[in-house]
Amino acid sequence: MIDQFLTEKASRTDAELRHYLARCADAPKTLRDAIAYSLFAGGKRLRPALALGAADMICGNDHAALPIACALEMIHTYSLIHDDLPSMDNDDLRRGKPTSHKVYGEAMAILAGDALLTLAFDAAADCGDVRVIREIANAAGAQGMVGGQAIDLESENLRLGVTELRALHARKTGALIRVSVRAGAMVAGAANAQIDALTRYGEAIGLAFQIADDILDVVGDEQAIGKPVGSDEAKNKSTYPAAVGLDAARQLASDAVSEAIAALSVFGPEADTFRALARYIIERDR
Amino acid sequence: MIDQFLTEKASRTDAELRHYLARCADAPKTLRDAIAYSLFAGGKRLRPALALGAADMICGNDHAALPIACALEMIHTYSLIHDDLPSMDNDDLRRGKPTSHKVYGEAMAILAGDALLTLAFDAAADCGDVRVIREIANAAGAQGMVGGQAIDLESENLRLGVTELRALHARKTGALIRVSVRAGAMVAGAANAQIDALTRYGEAIGLAFQIADDILDVVGDEQAIGKPVGSDEAKNKSTYPAAVGLDAARQLASDAVSEAIAALSVFGPEADTFRALARYIIERDR
Repeated sequence: MIDQFLTEKASRTDAELRHYLARCADAPKTLRDAIAYSLFAGGKRLRPALALGAADMICGNDHAALPIACALEMIHTYSLIHDDLPSMDNDDLRRGKPTSHKVYGEAMAILAGDALLTLAFDAAADCGDVRVIREIANAAGAQGMVGGQAIDLESENLRLGVTELRALHARKTGALIRVSVRAGAMVAGAANAQIDALTRYGEAIGLAFQIADDILDVVGDEQAIGKPVGSDEAKNKSTYPAAVGLDAARQLASDAVSEAIAALSVFGPEADTFRALARYIIERDR
Repeated sequence: MIDQFLTEKASRTDAELRHYLARCADAPKTLRDAIAYSLFAGGKRLRPALALGAADMICGNDHAALPIACALEMIHTYSLIHDDLPSMDNDDLRRGKPTSHKVYGEAMAILAGDALLTLAFDAAADCGDVRVIREIANAAGAQGMVGGQAIDLESENLRLGVTELRALHARKTGALIRVSVRAGAMVAGAANAQIDALTRYGEAIGLAFQIADDILDVVGDEQAIGKPVGSDEAKNKSTYPAAVGLDAARQLASDAVSEAIAALSVFGPEADTFRALARYIIERDR
């Protein structure tokens, strides 16, 4: 069920992303190529699926959430391009392919990221609701994702405990996952109680997602995850398995999934996809 | 008159920028410091002055344009931080002070730029008009400012002629100046004919501004412009004086100013400040 849901939402998102790229037809070719290279590098489209799925739950269709689904994927993609830069994580591979700066050079990679972040707000504007635009900016900015990156940078070579790790990831990956669910619900006209419940869901799956990512880096299949196994450890990155051990990390992830499912108790069967998605997040192999 | 106008608009903008920075109170301290360092490094606040001045002209006060004035200055500031990076222009000084990456390191400078660009759309959302947000995103993105940067990057060590230079700068610096005037007029409720006239004004002063900048780099006072005289030539940058000679460049700038003033003919005395501002742009010493 989840595979079909993710495939369908990814294909709707990809079609709409191509529509937004077409808006840049007049941009310099190398820049457009660099944007398309990273945007269509085989991402799972988790954030779009969350935004579109939340809209489905609230109003029975995902149409209103398509622009923000694209905006969120553009923001996610720009953050990966900039994270991979030599002065940041200095990664040569992403999803099994050479990173943007390896293909286009460092300067063009920085510009491709800048262009994607800007285009994201062009897309977000299409949702027509300035409150949603503001929420996305807050989640992506200095207090959210970029702030998490800054904390990560300053925590290099430190061994963070679980509390600090949670605070770091609540910003670095959690904020954008959380706002994906919230924004999808908001544009679909959700009531405040529904938005609150989905916010708790988003926070819990964001945590589960990060722990699962850390675990995959230890025990995953190199082919499936698209980068060398053990790369976090090699880079001296703080991870949940390093902080509490593999078994305890698995338990934390499982607890977070239970919390996510509990948050959906105000909903009926229309939330079954999101219940299954929560379980999928810790069972996936990439 | 113009000095007083610019000083007053800069001080209103600075107060509002501090208000937006306060929204990031919860962001990591180093990131906040890096943002504030570049945002309050002594910029002329030309783009805010254009947005606020346009609103003044249209509706007699600039209140509605304050959020976008801040957004435009944040976008301008982020673009300077990223332009100065080692992989881009590799500049050590900006407005006479060490550049962001010299003070905070390359990774934090990239993040400070990303955070400013994101915060800009948080601020822009406060104008309440998604059309204006979309215009700003278009002017700042792949088809506008970032696109101009990409063209600049790919034109390194080429000697551009006047037509190519104009096309480059219409994006790199022109698009943001143009949208400053347009957005200020739009949020003040301008009629289409007024927006069209102000658009032509914005395009003409954008051109004049760039030519004047190139001339200052040749004949300016190092102290006043905050960087070594002749740095464009040292970097093999294409400039108007290099393309057509100093006298012809001065004539081009003067023609652009006349064009800007002609565009304002649909307005009465309420446009006198903008008429004077156009003249000031080629007479300034920094």
